[in-house]
Formats: sequence, C-alpha cells, structure tokens
Amino acid sequence: MKKPLILVTNDDGITAPGIRTLISVMNEIGEVVVVAPDGPQSGMGHAVTINNILYCNEVKIDDGPQKEYQCSGTPADCIKIAVSEILDRKPDLCVSGINHGSNSSINVIYSGTMSAAVEAGVEGIPAIGFSLLDYSWSADFEPLKEHIRKITKSVLENKLPIDVVLNVNFPKAQSFKGIKICRQARANWVEEFDKRFNPQQKAYYWLTGKFVNMDKGQDTDEWALANGYISVVPVQFDLTAHHAIHKLNNWNL
Amino acid sequence: MKKPLILVTNDDGITAPGIRTLISVMNEIGEVVVVAPDGPQSGMGHAVTINNILYCNEVKIDDGPQKEYQCSGTPADCIKIAVSEILDRKPDLCVSGINHGSNSSINVIYSGTMSAAVEAGVEGIPAIGFSLLDYSWSADFEPLKEHIRKITKSVLENKLPIDVVLNVNFPKAQSFKGIKICRQARANWVEEFDKRFNPQQKAYYWLTGKFVNMDKGQDTDEWALANGYISVVPVQFDLTAHHAIHKLNNWNL
Repeated sequence: MKKPLILVTNDDGITAPGIRTLISVMNEIGEVVVVAPDGPQSGMGHAVTINNILYCNEVKIDDGPQKEYQCSGTPADCIKIAVSEILDRKPDLCVSGINHGSNSSINVIYSGTMSAAVEAGVEGIPAIGFSLLDYSWSADFEPLKEHIRKITKSVLENKLPIDVVLNVNFPKAQSFKGIKICRQARANWVEEFDKRFNPQQKAYYWLTGKFVNMDKGQDTDEWALANGYISVVPVQFDLTAHHAIHKLNNWNL
Repeated sequence: MKKPLILVTNDDGITAPGIRTLISVMNEIGEVVVVAPDGPQSGMGHAVTINNILYCNEVKIDDGPQKEYQCSGTPADCIKIAVSEILDRKPDLCVSGINHGSNSSINVIYSGTMSAAVEAGVEGIPAIGFSLLDYSWSADFEPLKEHIRKITKSVLENKLPIDVVLNVNFPKAQSFKGIKICRQARANWVEEFDKRFNPQQKAYYWLTGKFVNMDKGQDTDEWALANGYISVVPVQFDLTAHHAIHKLNNWNL
C-alpha cells in the first residue's frame, strides 16, 4: 500500500522543538513534506498575506527523510502555497503543531496552528492541530508521541466527517488519563494592557491578559485538560449560527 | 433615554471611505467612539499582536462629534484596547466596516472586519460587520445608509441571541431587493500564486486566487448577493462541530 502523503506545518516556526517532534512521528507513518513559517507566527489567527510578497525555500534541518520548505508567510499561507506550488498531489493529511502552548477553548480563533489545520480543511484535506499546554521551548514532547501516532492513524483509517478538523490539546503531564472528545469551552481572555513609554516618551502597550473560563460543563476541553485528559474537539468552519436564523427571520428587517 | 455607546472599527484603516460612512450613520444613533487601525489590515483574520508593541493615539479626522483613536495593531487588537484602555464602560454595540470588498461565505474566516465583530462578541458586546461587494476606494456607500440604520436599530431593540454576531454584506447596486437571513455558503478560494523573481533573481510569490462556490443552496449568502439581496448571516464563535462528537466517540481512541 502506498504511504500517505502528510503535510506538516506549525505557527512557532520550522525549527521549533514541537514541529521537529511532530515530523519525527509522521516519518513513521507516511511520506512527509514540511511547509512551515521561517519564524514565529503565534497569534496570527487566520491571517493571509495579500499586501506583501511571500518567499518559500527548500531547507535541510535534520537528517530525516522529509522534504522541507520554509515560508515567510503565515500558517494559512503555508497551506495555500504547499497545495498550490509545492506538492504535486493533494496530501492525504495535514498536521499542524505541536504548538508550544494551549489552543483549547476560545484560543482556537487566535491560533495560527489551528488556522493552518482549518485552511487545510477548507481545501478538503483531513487535518489535525496538536498543542501542548506548556510554553517552554524545552517542554517534554516525548509522552505525547504514542498518542499523536494513535490519533493520526485513526484519522487516516476512520476518515473525518466532512468539513471537520480536529483540535487536540495535551495537558502538561508525564502521562495522561485518556482521550476525551469535547466541545469548546465558553471562555475568554480579559485583557490587561501593560502601558509603557518609549525613549521619546510616547505611550505604547503590550497586550497581556488573564484567561477566564466561566463554563462549568464537564464535556468541555478545559474540563478534560484540567483533569488530566487529552482533549479532542471537532472543529468546523461553517460559522453560521443556524439556531439563530429562525429568530432573526422574526425581526422586521 | 441615554444614547447607546457605539464602538466603530474596520480593517481598511481609519481614513477609509467605508468607515467614514459608517461613522456618519452611527453619529445619528448613538455616542460614537472609533478605535481603528492606522493602516490597511485586510486579510488579517483573527490575528492579535503578542510579539510586538501597540500604539494607540487620539486623532481628529473630520468635524463629527465622535472621539477617534488610531491603533497600530490588528482589528482584533483595536477591540481589545478599546474595551480595556479607551472606553470607561462596555459599549452597547460594536460595528465594523464598511469593508471595501466581500466578507461573505468562507471570507468570514480571513476577514479582519468580521474578526473585530467576533472579538466584540467574545467580550459580550453585540456586534455587526458590514461589507460592500466593491473593492473600489470610490465605491458608492450612499445606498447602504438606510439599511445600515435599520439593521443597527433592530439589533439595539431586539437584542441578538447570545454569542451571535451579524455578518452583513451588500451587493454592488444602487438599490436592493430586500434583506435575506442566510447561512454561510460552502465555498473556497482556489489559489493561483503569481511567481516572480526579485532583482537578485530570488523567487517570490504573490497570493492570488479564484473564488469557487460549489454550494447550490438558495438559502446561502452567495445566492442572496447574486440575486440582489442584502445578506445577513448570524455568526458564532463556538467552532465545535457538535454533530461530529457522537461519531468520534465511536472511534477507538
């Protein structure tokens, strides 16, 4: 049987330990092509580059069998250029990550990691985003490997529902209680801007914030992660609030 | 009765004709504060600025009664800094636009205009994004005004369903057949990268593409717009594909 063609990307940049781990696992499963940002693109959401140019060059980073390209654009750009310019056929799977930090709950909408997976989904490619709840560059990705292998193989074997991609988050732990299929918790960031003054005494700000989860449900990704489980949220890109259509039709518009 | 506090933003920049039109309409309805990007931020999706600083300064652009601030960040940054640093109370409404160009169908996920509206929604503020299917800087926004007025007043009076914001698109026309409440069409962009060489003979790319709508439904925003109607799509930011949870639970994970 032909090996599946797997496209790998991330938002922390092509040399981040997270993507290097992901590449090593994917090399066991399929033929791997990496198209990833040449530097950090965290928090880029679903940004695409339309007012600037893109570079995309082949690079060799380690001794693995994968082909690798670094791109000057966003994670969503990486998927677009991979599909359109780099690959000679549609990949069987796209994996993004392993992100250094959480993409659970509302973080999905800010996440470059997940936007790459969503972009692949929009283009009809089965896709998974992986994230670890540990921002450290020296985070231990070893305990994740067997679970990434299992989830990836399941997606290749079982096929995802149409127009659905997976958002997989790992708690910071040496072992996990299991895998929970979850819904996205209703949480948000409460901003706390750090106001400073530049050498010319002009005010500027750093965006910081506190994550607040008001959702008490035990079926959420936040609950699963807080209780030692790996969370898997099926994510869609039809943003229509279908339940609201009937109500809006009763407005006198 | 106290006038509603209305926060106005966009992604084309604070001097774009679209936002100037939107400000003029909102001045009739409420007390207006503008916090908008100091330059073009199209295609920024839900990007937020975490690895760089933000400037945010009061400016005076026309003779209207509104207060205005230009921000060096993305549309989502503008909402965050407005709520956290500029406004002394939560606004009663946030409006974003009028975008120069379509934000219908899948464009909602790339759109800075809609991400600002979604960010407001995440923070519990009723929000509407307005877009016109005309990229021209000299587009005629006059025919839109009465409809923007009507939709805005309806949102203030009827209250939106919880965690739902509106994505309003106008076809390019002098008059409209009416308003249709729609679902997001299943469409996507097929990329066509324009490959060029810089003066040092290094290859670079411009992202371009063709919008392809495979969705034949007559309940979609694309159908409404193609048939002369204003489209209104209720948009949610719970991206969970709830229908897929049961199926995934049957996988042996």
